Amino acid sequence: MKEPKDRRVSRRQLLQMGFAASATAFLTGGVKLASPSLVHAQDQNPLPSWNDGLPKRAILNFIRDTTDPSGPKFVPPEQRIAAFDQDGTTWVEQPIYSQVVYCLSRVPAVVKAKPELADAEPFKTVLSGDRAAIAKLQIADLYKILAATLTGMSVDEFHDQVQQWLKGARDPRWKKPYTELIYQPMLEVMQYFRTNGYKTYFVTGGGQDFVRVYAETVYGVPPEQVVGTVGGTTFGYDANGRPFLTKDPKLLLNDDHAGKPEGIHMMIGRIPYAAFGNSIGDRQMLEYTKSGGGERLAMLVLHDDKEREYAYGPALGLPDSRIGTFTQALYDEASSKGWTVISMKSDWKRIFAFEA
Amino acid sequence: MKEPKDRRVSRRQLLQMGFAASATAFLTGGVKLASPSLVHAQDQNPLPSWNDGLPKRAILNFIRDTTDPSGPKFVPPEQRIAAFDQDGTTWVEQPIYSQVVYCLSRVPAVVKAKPELADAEPFKTVLSGDRAAIAKLQIADLYKILAATLTGMSVDEFHDQVQQWLKGARDPRWKKPYTELIYQPMLEVMQYFRTNGYKTYFVTGGGQDFVRVYAETVYGVPPEQVVGTVGGTTFGYDANGRPFLTKDPKLLLNDDHAGKPEGIHMMIGRIPYAAFGNSIGDRQMLEYTKSGGGERLAMLVLHDDKEREYAYGPALGLPDSRIGTFTQALYDEASSKGWTVISMKSDWKRIFAFEA
Repeated sequence: MKEPKDRRVSRRQLLQMGFAASATAFLTGGVKLASPSLVHAQDQNPLPSWNDGLPKRAILNFIRDTTDPSGPKFVPPEQRIAAFDQDGTTWVEQPIYSQVVYCLSRVPAVVKAKPELADAEPFKTVLSGDRAAIAKLQIADLYKILAATLTGMSVDEFHDQVQQWLKGARDPRWKKPYTELIYQPMLEVMQYFRTNGYKTYFVTGGGQDFVRVYAETVYGVPPEQVVGTVGGTTFGYDANGRPFLTKDPKLLLNDDHAGKPEGIHMMIGRIPYAAFGNSIGDRQMLEYTKSGGGERLAMLVLHDDKEREYAYGPALGLPDSRIGTFTQALYDEASSKGWTVISMKSDWKRIFAFEA
Repeated sequence: MKEPKDRRVSRRQLLQMGFAASATAFLTGGVKLASPSLVHAQDQNPLPSWNDGLPKRAILNFIRDTTDPSGPKFVPPEQRIAAFDQDGTTWVEQPIYSQVVYCLSRVPAVVKAKPELADAEPFKTVLSGDRAAIAKLQIADLYKILAATLTGMSVDEFHDQVQQWLKGARDPRWKKPYTELIYQPMLEVMQYFRTNGYKTYFVTGGGQDFVRVYAETVYGVPPEQVVGTVGGTTFGYDANGRPFLTKDPKLLLNDDHAGKPEGIHMMIGRIPYAAFGNSIGDRQMLEYTKSGGGERLAMLVLHDDKEREYAYGPALGLPDSRIGTFTQALYDEASSKGWTVISMKSDWKRIFAFEA
């Protein structure tokens, strides 16, 4: 896989869109955290938002075969693990990851707490609101923003900050809370797996602590089943002797690409029986899942629905947005290894719960 | 808490005993991995190996109160997390941690694979069998042995090596497999918690991958609920293109003392409602557990039964064995904060399943 040579164009778009969204979010608030209701799968039609087709049949057959105690593909209940990428697999990742929007939105508060940052880059530029200048920020600058907004506070403070933000933030296209931009067909799959004794895990490049804030309410995935990018924490005591944990700028796990199987081993210690992704960042997770032997399900969501969501990725001959890259090589690997590609356009009757 | 000034005496004893045990283990084999049957708790008497007393009542009351939906101390099922230290809390840790015995036992195999180590220290000394010389090895030497025997192989190879060792290794005192030196009263507690909807986790200073090998068979704790000391892994492919993970000598989490709450946050993301330990290495975990507010149970096993197991720790006016140190300060903290101390001698009717 070649690295893209020029990251600036796409990052500019991302940062522009992201900052626009974050500014909006920052000025609004007070709305309750959205939580699309989880579908309760019924035996007759557990996947109502799916059109009949290969992907739907692959899921139904997999569940049928791995839960049939008399069949050769039976998986003992304690081994039933299913892993789901988040960004682009269970919720919208365009035009920019929600977590980056969050980080940009936090800059004013961070500068308020540390006024000396007001004249320091990249904070000065972010505060200026000058989109052209913001767009020119380098990756190293972005990391400074992530470090300043994701670390240094207590675990509890961080949780409250994210929860507060989620209440007010709105996606720029649908004007909806990010937690409503959930793919209804994937919610049905997660619920269907759980109904059949599978533990559903997130295995996401997003921050573990970030995703944990809403994963249980929105997806029914408890904190202990969120595997994400992990930073260290430091145990200490407050002035009253009460223990607390502070979030450190020390990266313990970059849960993307090869980091996904590494994270699965660290956090779960079993190879999943099913894995869902949508980009080259999920390739190793799917390979690892298939390496377990026996009946294993590997699926990739292809974003080919410009009308209802987005269409992107070189596998479609479309420009690479740098977010959720679905390359031709990934498509070829899926074909040759029996991974199932889900077409959002063809396979999903509806995409969001609010459509209905 | 003061650091002990002279670690050499105790380490000498440990290494002597450990190497004796490991040599025995290395020469035997072929016995099936022991798995004491898990007690199925009954409503009438869920803790049959416990004498009536404060600790037993504390456990029964805690479960009664936190599972009563009409009571003020009710804990919703999804939040029911109980954390257990392993060494000295659920199995024997004297005279030396089983995992160190394992590491010493692996040295001949490591040297066979890498003959150049035969003349390098500390491997040369371990191979010599000269107990006096082995006893003089420094902590830095011990780390070299740990690194050489716990890393460098694939995750699967390591799993097989530990499993093979467990089959043959025998504790020097009882001549039993280490996996039979499990405290029956604690097995009953773990099962009782699970029967009441609690997820039981290990939170151990032992290696996460080591403990995962037997935790499910022996204790009913699945791999994804073992939080231990974590080393990094690296994803790669074998000659046939099959993915695998290699264990790296990179420490991600030292799951002891302050590392325990840090590990709980990383791996679970919730504060436990109950925590069981036996030494100063568990202090922060118990403090963290209590910090969650509401009804929380914190318990410490005190090794005061020289006849049936061991008696050690400054809290008893006994010499500090350096393993499982139970200081006077810990005892005082337990008293002042309402943690319950379990006396093995008074509170446990029997200690091991094989006694019955």
